[in-house]
Amino acid sequence: MLTNKRIFSVEFGHCDPTGIVYNPNYFIWFDHSIHALLASRRVSLKALISEYCLDGIPVVEYKTQFLAPSRWGDELVIESSVVELQRCAFTVRHRILNDDVLIVDCTETRVCTGINPQQSDRPSARPLPAKLAAALSGSEVSA
Amino acid sequence: MLTNKRIFSVEFGHCDPTGIVYNPNYFIWFDHSIHALLASRRVSLKALISEYCLDGIPVVEYKTQFLAPSRWGDELVIESSVVELQRCAFTVRHRILNDDVLIVDCTETRVCTGINPQQSDRPSARPLPAKLAAALSGSEVSA
Amino acid sequence: MLTNKRIFSVEFGHCDPTGIVYNPNYFIWFDHSIHALLASRRVSLKALISEYCLDGIPVVEYKTQFLAPSRWGDELVIESSVVELQRCAFTVRHRILNDDVLIVDCTETRVCTGINPQQSDRPSARPLPAKLAAALSGSEVSA
Amino acid sequence: MLTNKRIFSVEFGHCDPTGIVYNPNYFIWFDHSIHALLASRRVSLKALISEYCLDGIPVVEYKTQFLAPSRWGDELVIESSVVELQRCAFTVRHRILNDDVLIVDCTETRVCTGINPQQSDRPSARPLPAKLAAALSGSEVSA
Repeated sequence: MLTNKRIFSVEFGHCDPTGIVYNPNYFIWFDHSIHALLASRRVSLKALISEYCLDGIPVVEYKTQFLAPSRWGDELVIESSVVELQRCAFTVRHRILNDDVLIVDCTETRVCTGINPQQSDRPSARPLPAKLAAALSGSEVSA
Repeated sequence: MLTNKRIFSVEFGHCDPTGIVYNPNYFIWFDHSIHALLASRRVSLKALISEYCLDGIPVVEYKTQFLAPSRWGDELVIESSVVELQRCAFTVRHRILNDDVLIVDCTETRVCTGINPQQSDRPSARPLPAKLAAALSGSEVSA
Repeated sequence: MLTNKRIFSVEFGHCDPTGIVYNPNYFIWFDHSIHALLASRRVSLKALISEYCLDGIPVVEYKTQFLAPSRWGDELVIESSVVELQRCAFTVRHRILNDDVLIVDCTETRVCTGINPQQSDRPSARPLPAKLAAALSGSEVSA
Repeated sequence: MLTNKRIFSVEFGHCDPTGIVYNPNYFIWFDHSIHALLASRRVSLKALISEYCLDGIPVVEYKTQFLAPSRWGDELVIESSVVELQRCAFTVRHRILNDDVLIVDCTETRVCTGINPQQSDRPSARPLPAKLAAALSGSEVSA
């Protein structure tokens, strides 16, 4: 299964008055990591959405544990790995390490959605495009 | 147990290029709702932190399901209810309704932490201040 | 000229480790105020963009002075007034008051842009839709 | 005078429903660039604030022009240069380039503030710490 790692620093503006990272920022970082995970296989959500007339690939579930805080100036490692691949959905586990200690553990599930021509206002689940499924499984993606 | 409701509108800037709310915003709204929940009982986290020399009352867990998207201009109702009260922690359930339909369901657990003088760099769990526990349980808070 | 006032509270998550509002938040609030200013005349940017095939009405200039900080729990008043109306652009002055003291003074200029069919990748200035110009000037808007 | 350059990508979550960067994000990037500018001379605002008992080094003015939009996936270069150095304040010019085209031009002025013991609730201007002034002027900073 596909895995990717990013390293970044906690900025001043990420932190709250108690001096620790304001936790909605972690969800922004998970989102950046999903895009980076796919980019590591030369897959772009932007191109997929337009190519397959998708509505999007929104998050349907997060289960997140915050084990320790992080602070301005800390250098964080976020490791994101596909842990489950379904017909219309996939699940990624994000583990954030601060100085080699696991501080945040999150599983995120996303579903591929498209517009249903019969019910034009409601998106419905769609099978993952083959290119996306191949990338997530870690198979070789042909150009 | 204490419960509170807030109504607010989805703004342009809350939405992403697919036109739906960018999901980290929901976690900002959960945080605002925690403060509003306490404020409804005249309890302020800011005052508690300073009065009890707390480090903070950080989130340790979120379990969140996104059942449907919301869009620019939607008016959302967020109902937040205390569902569990422990010695050092409490759990709140946030239910977001869009036009009376449940679109987000989240349980959030927070722990009260203080500085341990023996290990000055690591916060440790502290019993909830009596004033906070009383407010969360829905008991009358004396002035 | 059109003017509007909003009142809102500084939340915990708006503040940085020095305890004051992290200043990018002011620009989010200016944006919310532009939408509220138009909504006060029953004009929606969302409807204008779709009705007139606009690309958007982006900000082209901000001049902002921060005279004093604001903090978690402060109740702010933001007064937004149209101060200049041009063929393709308009300028709004936002004044933020904290306890009746002016703390932020900003002028914001926005331009109406559309897709130029000759150069499909570059937006170009468009005259303000009549409905928008009438609303900004404070004239009565017919239904 | 000190200058520094950063390269970064526009992420999905930085963009609004019209597909361009939501402009408050530029102010977050200016803030990151100020910290990176100082870090390039081994100066940390965090250390300065604690070492000199400062209240902070807040922004007092931005003058910003947005010349062209940027979009999800664009790679931006932000060049930040000190353009004026005063006793208690300094001004940095941030120029953001997208594919070698200048798209945002901003000057930002910050003032060094400390607590005035006579008026304990109001911060007042303080001379820039010598270490900070030396770094901003581009002089060699001794360890």
